[in-house]
Amino acid sequence: MADLSHRQAKAKIKIVGKDGKPLSNTKITVNQTKHEFLFGCGAFEALPYTNGPAVHNGNGSITTSSKLAGYEDRSIMEDRMQKWLNLFNYGTLPFYWGGFEPEEGQPHTQQLMAAAQFLKSKGVTIKGHPLCWHTGCVPWLMNYDNKTILQKQLQRIEREVSQFKDLIDMWDVINEVVIMPIYDKYDNAITRICKELGRVGLVRKVFDQAYKSNPDGTFLINDFNLSTSYEILIDGCLNSGAQINTIGLQSHQHQGVWGKEKQDEILSRYEHFGLPIHFTENTIVAGPLVAPEITDLQDAHYEDDAATPELEEKQADDLEQMYRNLFENHPLVTAITNWDFGDGAWLNAPSGLIRKDHTLKPAYHRLHKLIKEEWHTRLDCTTDANGLIEVQGFKGTYEVLRQGEAAGTSSAPAATFVLKAGGEDEIIEVNL
Amino acid sequence: MADLSHRQAKAKIKIVGKDGKPLSNTKITVNQTKHEFLFGCGAFEALPYTNGPAVHNGNGSITTSSKLAGYEDRSIMEDRMQKWLNLFNYGTLPFYWGGFEPEEGQPHTQQLMAAAQFLKSKGVTIKGHPLCWHTGCVPWLMNYDNKTILQKQLQRIEREVSQFKDLIDMWDVINEVVIMPIYDKYDNAITRICKELGRVGLVRKVFDQAYKSNPDGTFLINDFNLSTSYEILIDGCLNSGAQINTIGLQSHQHQGVWGKEKQDEILSRYEHFGLPIHFTENTIVAGPLVAPEITDLQDAHYEDDAATPELEEKQADDLEQMYRNLFENHPLVTAITNWDFGDGAWLNAPSGLIRKDHTLKPAYHRLHKLIKEEWHTRLDCTTDANGLIEVQGFKGTYEVLRQGEAAGTSSAPAATFVLKAGGEDEIIEVNL
Repeated sequence: MADLSHRQAKAKIKIVGKDGKPLSNTKITVNQTKHEFLFGCGAFEALPYTNGPAVHNGNGSITTSSKLAGYEDRSIMEDRMQKWLNLFNYGTLPFYWGGFEPEEGQPHTQQLMAAAQFLKSKGVTIKGHPLCWHTGCVPWLMNYDNKTILQKQLQRIEREVSQFKDLIDMWDVINEVVIMPIYDKYDNAITRICKELGRVGLVRKVFDQAYKSNPDGTFLINDFNLSTSYEILIDGCLNSGAQINTIGLQSHQHQGVWGKEKQDEILSRYEHFGLPIHFTENTIVAGPLVAPEITDLQDAHYEDDAATPELEEKQADDLEQMYRNLFENHPLVTAITNWDFGDGAWLNAPSGLIRKDHTLKPAYHRLHKLIKEEWHTRLDCTTDANGLIEVQGFKGTYEVLRQGEAAGTSSAPAATFVLKAGGEDEIIEVNL
Repeated sequence: MADLSHRQAKAKIKIVGKDGKPLSNTKITVNQTKHEFLFGCGAFEALPYTNGPAVHNGNGSITTSSKLAGYEDRSIMEDRMQKWLNLFNYGTLPFYWGGFEPEEGQPHTQQLMAAAQFLKSKGVTIKGHPLCWHTGCVPWLMNYDNKTILQKQLQRIEREVSQFKDLIDMWDVINEVVIMPIYDKYDNAITRICKELGRVGLVRKVFDQAYKSNPDGTFLINDFNLSTSYEILIDGCLNSGAQINTIGLQSHQHQGVWGKEKQDEILSRYEHFGLPIHFTENTIVAGPLVAPEITDLQDAHYEDDAATPELEEKQADDLEQMYRNLFENHPLVTAITNWDFGDGAWLNAPSGLIRKDHTLKPAYHRLHKLIKEEWHTRLDCTTDANGLIEVQGFKGTYEVLRQGEAAGTSSAPAATFVLKAGGEDEIIEVNL
């Protein structure tokens, strides 16, 4: 049995009745309702869910999804969203500049706001992705000189981070910087300014702006290139004062499943910074691998019928191994995002947890078992003479119920507490 | 004909006679005696030349040379040294810590001082190589904890840079940082501290120390890994305030001659920093290539008889192409060091300009033709009524002679001037 003490905490809870007196010798149940660990997923479907099918399309991911049969059927959308919410506490929303503001000065802020408000109302932590990236950028930006491009990039960061503050306080500030100044598929405004300022110079500027716009934000640098170059880039950025507070690692495994050895090797080159690490874009495909000679996954495309029951089972096995290793053995990893919720999104790959016919795949059930059963805490206990109970469980938010009372049946607001590190010696008072 | 204006300068020279009056209408010759461009070579042989055969051995390079037949014969040593001095204005001396201070507190300072004084007396610019490197480091350093290792490393920099000031003002401060913290061939003190401080943190510290010890010094970072990682490392170091003022690129071409395309591609990733670039360790071998599966050249070894006349001719061709491209097309390149003067030094490779039997190879003659003929300026001219002449030529130091007078024949100190950028509007007075 793995040692999971780094994922757990202890607390003393004092249960107080409506009369303000401790509830002594009372049988109660404490039930975890949310993990501190961010079990996430792409939440792109929250956009059509809240705005209707004609929505902002950042980078292709929605377009394909919205072509799924029955996607305009409200009951199907409700069902898919409920399945999403039943598993995840954390979602990534698309802010690709190209889709967000195709015409200068006409950003789709309201659409994103609606999706974010919906997710937040369901207790979901949200990350915006990304604020600065050469791919999927707006063509109109190329009409300006480099000084103006930079200015508009920083204004864009200021606008989004400020307007979404309290709704979205977590951002992939800059994406794929290792390749950014040498990206040569097509001319774009961001490659131009990265070439002029240098990687570290640009990183510092975009993080400075993000931090200024929301001093309490969680700000990630994010990359798919996990070579020595990325490690050295982060080293240089941190040493030059860039306010990166979280390291983002992409793990699209379309060309081969990593396995434990590669997971550990990669992490050993990022854990030494001592910062939280997020697996920001994880993909394990229930389908054949993309050929190794394809260097840019954007050039890959899957057939619709690539998945088989055996491949779906393997996807579930591989996902379980990865989640287990990261959650159990790497305390600095604090988030994993499964990139595609549904099959047939990015690259039309069978990389989701739910099929195109809206049925759940083995991978969904496997993650649900880990997150909602094995790593989930529910305790039945009896308060002592002073109304106290001692709780040890996975970090996160808990509801307190009288035994026999089902969750959500009381008309009163739920009695809750948060179990987190360092709270052992305090007594948390909960009014039941 | 290549445009070499970036290597040239103009000046007005006023020739003044012994009586203090301008020498009008006088036929004189202006002859370049030294290039501003640093045409360099490993000057390891200056150590046995000045100290006798039993000398400090940094990293194997001397050991092998000193085994050459006849190497103890003074006349052979004189002949080899004269050939060295006839071609180069710049030499690298070995300061590998392992050879320089095998017993703590007993550095071979005097041996290096003798070699440096000799080279300086011949007008040679000297660079010390290297001050911080994981390879060839001293074993006794591993007896200390990391804090003490760092302290001793910085003290070592302070000691060498201060003691050799005015004799050696140019240093490879740190060598091969990209691989430094992940170097796993054997445990060593420098990898330990690089792991703890991070690459950028260590670079900043060693450069801070070097700069403090000699604020006017030329301080290089140097690497054989010329991938994106090194570019990002330099970017991070400069952005975090590391006082690197020159970029060092190694170009050991034992596994394939680069050619123009690769030279240009590599330079495009370093020229954008705007700093001077030195080719610090250039090797083109008159012998078969080292197999591509050998990742560390230290594992390679050449047979004595590997060279042939055809291979020697090809070495000369390839060297000429490279020197020509760097000198003609890349203004930021201000130095090229041919690593091995003699065949049979590092790796026993036929990579020198002079054979083991002390005869000159085609590569020597080819470089001599470029440096001392094609890129050399000698002008016959007549002063005007005011004793003025206008000179345009390759940047560097010049002697002024009355026509017909051979160089060095006058008992008076030579009349000289320096031709450099930005001096066009001044008048340089030369007393003849």
